[in-house]
Amino acid sequence: MISKRQIKTITSLHQKKYRKLTGLFVAEGKKVIEEFLNSNFELDTLFTTDVDLFASDRKITLISEPELKKISFLKTPNTSLALFKVKEVSTIATEGLIVTLDDVRDPGNLGTIIRLCDWFGVKHLVCSQATVDCYNPKVIQATMGSLTRVNVVYTDLKKYLSETNLPIYGAFMDGSNVYKTNLPATGILVMGNEANGVSEEISNLITEKISIPRFGEIQQTESLNVAMATGILLSEFRRA
Amino acid sequence: MISKRQIKTITSLHQKKYRKLTGLFVAEGKKVIEEFLNSNFELDTLFTTDVDLFASDRKITLISEPELKKISFLKTPNTSLALFKVKEVSTIATEGLIVTLDDVRDPGNLGTIIRLCDWFGVKHLVCSQATVDCYNPKVIQATMGSLTRVNVVYTDLKKYLSETNLPIYGAFMDGSNVYKTNLPATGILVMGNEANGVSEEISNLITEKISIPRFGEIQQTESLNVAMATGILLSEFRRA
Repeated sequence: MISKRQIKTITSLHQKKYRKLTGLFVAEGKKVIEEFLNSNFELDTLFTTDVDLFASDRKITLISEPELKKISFLKTPNTSLALFKVKEVSTIATEGLIVTLDDVRDPGNLGTIIRLCDWFGVKHLVCSQATVDCYNPKVIQATMGSLTRVNVVYTDLKKYLSETNLPIYGAFMDGSNVYKTNLPATGILVMGNEANGVSEEISNLITEKISIPRFGEIQQTESLNVAMATGILLSEFRRA
Repeated sequence: MISKRQIKTITSLHQKKYRKLTGLFVAEGKKVIEEFLNSNFELDTLFTTDVDLFASDRKITLISEPELKKISFLKTPNTSLALFKVKEVSTIATEGLIVTLDDVRDPGNLGTIIRLCDWFGVKHLVCSQATVDCYNPKVIQATMGSLTRVNVVYTDLKKYLSETNLPIYGAFMDGSNVYKTNLPATGILVMGNEANGVSEEISNLITEKISIPRFGEIQQTESLNVAMATGILLSEFRRA
């Protein structure tokens, strides 16, 4: 059984404002929820239609399917929806391979990039303040649990990049051929906004501009999707 | 002005059955339509709300915005929707770098893969009969015109791969490390279905199974999305 007030709280969590206010975010589906349960994220409440998951725990609430439909953000709701507590990441990465995002706005792109960081063993993702929130429900579903293994931090990117001693690589349309660039095991990769690429103020802080070469007759003005470019570039860093 | 019959015909074209029957497909948005107009695809009819595009041509029909809303497949319709004639590709590729898809079902994935072929100069994409139709409106919009530069053919994949003399590389969870594999400039790359990977009957025809190594703590059972894996593998083929 779920109260009207709880329904209102949960549905409000698709807005960043209410996630900030409550310190909670939504995860749906067995696999995603299990990954968060097995991590250092703290469960607030688990709502489930699955009696097997139900236990006499104040954190678990058995609900009906119509109730699940009311609170789910998915087209086809799964059996469970969980609220977890937002994790405040305070330490900013200063070593290893680090990805930074300069205003990536699409939740699907951020979700894919977090998953790529997980695949390629990148522990730290540093985002500009205008980058889409990693606790956005679409991001959570797209990451499929990878957020439990990648630290995502939002900060003043200009300040962060000004203060680092690491080499800073940035993805640009007119950068040097990445296949001919020596990439280090330790460094920062900057990926830009979907429409505008890396902003001018961040461009000035880049040590080396890199590009994925085109091989077909596709026009010079075309670009790869930012998540795809991140995947190909991380592969290049790791293969070295 | 658009007739009720035309509206019915156009909206039916989201189904493969009616695309087969009429030999027509839908392209929307200025950029996508322009790419098809500048290619060897043949225009059937262009419906537009833009008087500047209108000409005294029997192939161009000026319509109102409410009419465009009725026929558009997009959430936010653009100014124009065009019907083009499906191109029958009869010759199957036997040289160069060729990508083949073994039952890729998601239109977004196919669209992204066609775009990647375009980027990496792969002229031929050979698909199993069960692979999603490349004239599906979601595929057309995701390719952003790349279908004008990549030949997509549907065929009996088992027969095609049995008869080729080219080396056949396939993406597998347990393949050899792609970074340590010598990849030729000419050959076939087989990518499998989203849920099941490459089917068993096609697996038997593979010359060399390859994998993109994992670097993080992500579980062995996890995999990269098929379009992302295609992007990273094509990059590997081209960098060689």
